[in-house]
Amino acid sequence: MPNVRAEALRALTQDCFQAAGCPSGDAELIARLMVLSNLRGHDSHGVRQMPRYLRNIQDGHTMPHTEMTVVRDTPSLAILDANRAMGHVAATRAMELAISKARQMHISAVGVRNLDHIGRIGAYPEMAAEQGMVGLCFTATLGPASIVTPYGGVQGRFATNPISACFPVPQGDPVLLDFATSVVAANKIRQALDRGKEADEGWMIDRQGRPVRDPQAFIDREAVMLPLGGPRGYKGYGLAVLVEILAGILTGAGTFATLRDRSNTNNVSFLIVIDPTALVSREYYEREILSLVEYLHDTEVRPGDPPVLIPGEYEGNQQRQREVEGIVIEEPVWNAIQEAAANLGVAVPTPVP
Amino acid sequence: MPNVRAEALRALTQDCFQAAGCPSGDAELIARLMVLSNLRGHDSHGVRQMPRYLRNIQDGHTMPHTEMTVVRDTPSLAILDANRAMGHVAATRAMELAISKARQMHISAVGVRNLDHIGRIGAYPEMAAEQGMVGLCFTATLGPASIVTPYGGVQGRFATNPISACFPVPQGDPVLLDFATSVVAANKIRQALDRGKEADEGWMIDRQGRPVRDPQAFIDREAVMLPLGGPRGYKGYGLAVLVEILAGILTGAGTFATLRDRSNTNNVSFLIVIDPTALVSREYYEREILSLVEYLHDTEVRPGDPPVLIPGEYEGNQQRQREVEGIVIEEPVWNAIQEAAANLGVAVPTPVP
Repeated sequence: MPNVRAEALRALTQDCFQAAGCPSGDAELIARLMVLSNLRGHDSHGVRQMPRYLRNIQDGHTMPHTEMTVVRDTPSLAILDANRAMGHVAATRAMELAISKARQMHISAVGVRNLDHIGRIGAYPEMAAEQGMVGLCFTATLGPASIVTPYGGVQGRFATNPISACFPVPQGDPVLLDFATSVVAANKIRQALDRGKEADEGWMIDRQGRPVRDPQAFIDREAVMLPLGGPRGYKGYGLAVLVEILAGILTGAGTFATLRDRSNTNNVSFLIVIDPTALVSREYYEREILSLVEYLHDTEVRPGDPPVLIPGEYEGNQQRQREVEGIVIEEPVWNAIQEAAANLGVAVPTPVP
Repeated sequence: MPNVRAEALRALTQDCFQAAGCPSGDAELIARLMVLSNLRGHDSHGVRQMPRYLRNIQDGHTMPHTEMTVVRDTPSLAILDANRAMGHVAATRAMELAISKARQMHISAVGVRNLDHIGRIGAYPEMAAEQGMVGLCFTATLGPASIVTPYGGVQGRFATNPISACFPVPQGDPVLLDFATSVVAANKIRQALDRGKEADEGWMIDRQGRPVRDPQAFIDREAVMLPLGGPRGYKGYGLAVLVEILAGILTGAGTFATLRDRSNTNNVSFLIVIDPTALVSREYYEREILSLVEYLHDTEVRPGDPPVLIPGEYEGNQQRQREVEGIVIEEPVWNAIQEAAANLGVAVPTPVP
């Protein structure tokens, strides 16, 4: 499979979005965040999405220029309407605003609506943590793709409604949560299909409530995903509702209940930022979080098992490895990227053999 | 089993805490919240805890008078040290403070530490929702009882670290989440023991990582609980870490990493309150949340299955039923309550036959 260095991949991605009409600063940001998804081990949200994002711009669904409208603005809160901007750019602006409000007001919340897919949602809380802040992100996807059923149902009512949170750790990987409130991310099912494999037991059911393992049934809308928790799926369902209200209603975007006939699907996000040093001293915070990290690392494991990871350590390990070894891209994904670049007249780097 | 009316149970509980030295207003609040746990279907956190709480007061672990110290106070944030007050009283004061700050500042966070068990954590976000606010509560329990293992480990590192959130719904049950980030609440295992039953598969493992179903092994500290999520247990683990940092570190209380030798176990809580009308109009919020509730109720189910519940609807249904039918209390629990009351010279109501 082709192996491309992060730097070359960033240049390619930036060139493509610039050629598609994005301002160079925006294109650089999009490229940085997309390649960061690959570096941090989440290929599903990385450059494989590039052809789709470019198509959205070419089709007029996504605007290459970001013109955000401030719908609501108080010292601690805001709602931004992204007017169909690129998700990465709009969500970054929203997080920057939340960080600057939290710096002034100690805690803030910013909602952003009407934007394209924001990619890996962990990227935004990470921005807060890079500045010493605690960041939270709740993201819903509105539109026709209601693919997750409430607990006890057999019909889609939500998207995978992921949650992310990031806490700064001095001289170490930040503590990072980033996961779907459904059993798995939808892309795991698409990945199973690509690889000719079955989905795991417990991921999907059909309209009769019977377990489904054929990923094609999901693509054909004959199966829905279950909420996180298996027999305790009411917990994942509860979290999905939480995300739906915070990201859907508190941003003024709406929910599947009111927008289910919409033809376009958009990420809507609700961000919360807290300045931990407004509560405890920086020294105390750093000492305590380092102790916690060490304590979790020291957890006893089964003989022969790998040590317990801190949430976010997987991402840090992947990034260190891929910065050195390059990013391996599946053949069909690389072909689609090459094609998208060629259409825009952008030169494609030669993969490392 | 004895059946006691809510009103009689409240009077009994109030009398006991007053006899134990609590001011009458505090005793009334404690009684109201404890009986509300029973009414709302969570007997594990209701009056069965009364003898334990009274013993904590008698042993000097819990102070009957609430004298809170304001450790940190900004317009949007605060940390309160409860100086070993009753949990229900201290957490209520903390939530009231968070609500009043959110009314002024639109979003607020309040941490409260050094307090006894706060009971059903959903009660506090419910207070926010009753005043039209969105309330969140993250609660850790510090002390020797680290009973939940990180994902991939075989050793306890956390308590069950529950999360609660509540959203107001006009003329209806509020949307309420209230659950442990472990597979189940610890009390489910104790309940299994009381009833002579086995724990479910997937709840516990021993130090060799083998599944355990005998609840006695948990009591004997030979088994630990798994985080929410089964094969996706890294999600429950991530949520447990989130709670540990918010409730432990951001309140200045510490975590198991630094406090694991402590002899007393205390709930520490981190509360976030958001005024939704600072973001969207009350009219819009109400219309959208009612649409969402209706939409979720309309979810297709398997033929013969009960309809999908809104998170929090179980609690509402239980309350409506138990307000009318009374609260059934297990014989040994009722005996322990009678004994505790007798020790304080408090008269006990006669259960309905």
